[in-house]
Amino acid sequence: MPRPASAIEQSIPAELAIDCPTVVKVLSRFIHSEVRRTGFRRVVIGLSGGVDSATSAALACRALGARNVICVLLPYRTSSPGSLRDARRLARQLGAPTRRIDISPMIDAYFRRQPRASRVRRGNKMARERMSILYDLSVPEQALVLGTSNKTELLLGYGTIHGDMASALNPLGDLLKTQVRQLAEHLGIPRAIVWKTATADLWEGQSDEQDLGYAYRDIDRLLALLVGRRAAAAAAVAAGFPRAMVVRVTMMITSSQFKRRPPLIAKLAPRTVNIDFRYPRDWGR
Amino acid sequence: MPRPASAIEQSIPAELAIDCPTVVKVLSRFIHSEVRRTGFRRVVIGLSGGVDSATSAALACRALGARNVICVLLPYRTSSPGSLRDARRLARQLGAPTRRIDISPMIDAYFRRQPRASRVRRGNKMARERMSILYDLSVPEQALVLGTSNKTELLLGYGTIHGDMASALNPLGDLLKTQVRQLAEHLGIPRAIVWKTATADLWEGQSDEQDLGYAYRDIDRLLALLVGRRAAAAAAVAAGFPRAMVVRVTMMITSSQFKRRPPLIAKLAPRTVNIDFRYPRDWGR
Repeated sequence: MPRPASAIEQSIPAELAIDCPTVVKVLSRFIHSEVRRTGFRRVVIGLSGGVDSATSAALACRALGARNVICVLLPYRTSSPGSLRDARRLARQLGAPTRRIDISPMIDAYFRRQPRASRVRRGNKMARERMSILYDLSVPEQALVLGTSNKTELLLGYGTIHGDMASALNPLGDLLKTQVRQLAEHLGIPRAIVWKTATADLWEGQSDEQDLGYAYRDIDRLLALLVGRRAAAAAAVAAGFPRAMVVRVTMMITSSQFKRRPPLIAKLAPRTVNIDFRYPRDWGR
Repeated sequence: MPRPASAIEQSIPAELAIDCPTVVKVLSRFIHSEVRRTGFRRVVIGLSGGVDSATSAALACRALGARNVICVLLPYRTSSPGSLRDARRLARQLGAPTRRIDISPMIDAYFRRQPRASRVRRGNKMARERMSILYDLSVPEQALVLGTSNKTELLLGYGTIHGDMASALNPLGDLLKTQVRQLAEHLGIPRAIVWKTATADLWEGQSDEQDLGYAYRDIDRLLALLVGRRAAAAAAVAAGFPRAMVVRVTMMITSSQFKRRPPLIAKLAPRTVNIDFRYPRDWGR
């Protein structure tokens, strides 16, 4: 008798479904080999209580052993206490050590001088403070910074450059949000985390899907079509996506290209960084 | 009667000499076109009082007009007062507006919790705080963050990833340190700045050349050979460079490759960010 499909299996559109055991194997090998070849054994990761960082941490635990995955909780004073609790519970379940650093003193010290800053500016400053702390802690922890940005965020530019988008290596960067949820359930991440309303938690009541204007399930189906299968806009419209959505998503992809690339450099010399001096990362090894 | 060579012209090894008028033309067009095509008219730049940020700012003033170049002074309480004075004087000479934000409150708030942090950790945290402030100010200023990393720093990895190495566009990224000095003199940057002992100013008395172990003039000649002309190590030794220097510089280049590249992503899907989804920055425009 066939095993009944889980809630997530039922809810994943067929074209987005991933082969979870294979993906786990590929990604844990990726983490293990990239960490070891750079001379490290450990990673630091910012654990928010959401599904992305939970999944990235769970993969790292499989790859490196849980005690080599330093989970850093980086709340601001308005961050959801429920998120912090979920993050702690997950680290306990994984058996990974935690550190907790409240970012409020640094953030408040800055915005005392910028009292009229919008909540988007505040949110970006927090994301960069978290990055800065993770990179700082990576020194005494002798660890690499593990990324948590999924492909949906990367393609839409729905993240902070030099903030949450920064890392040494990112196991989730080729998985759409819907696929991260599927993988999370496979990895035994608690349902409360897997199915939590996705939010950057930059202000109270924020929701990704409200910000973006569409459900992740639909955005991901469109991204799989436009990016994965190189479909033209007209083909996406013919496949049933509203024209306005296709236009908006395409615009988000193109206008956020700068967030996915290193700084632009004007070419002057025979060989230029990131133009023709662009070896694989392991050049010369 | 031929014009007598200036001090800098005399001191630049022939193989490093650049054609300053052409370089100024190329770089000011680069700044102008990249800023305008992304819908902006202004840049923000962190002015340290050193020759790199001075040169980058001077180029931006030519490209965009001085009032469109927001010079941000970001001292820490132990930063050299002389550097701050030089930065202010330069902005006045250029006619560019200045902002000043003391980074001490944010840095001190963090290190109260990390009292045993090394000076390198402190220096990197400061560099990332400055980046974070420049990106934050770029929002109300409606500006892009202009980079100041020269090619010597980029190749040696002598800079902070997601700190001073971060920017939207970097006019100096293809000029070796010695060439930046030549260009600075051509642009009329005060001699006191052009010839100042190069320092990251992360602690008192720090000097780049002491940190690196060699004079910029020699490092740059070696980089021009190894990178610009693809010379093998043996050829560099035959050309008179000490073997230990060739080994050390090569090691610095290879081991810092990660600082010049975006985060590593494991490939799973047909098209992956920064693997085969890697269009020019202006994709689709």
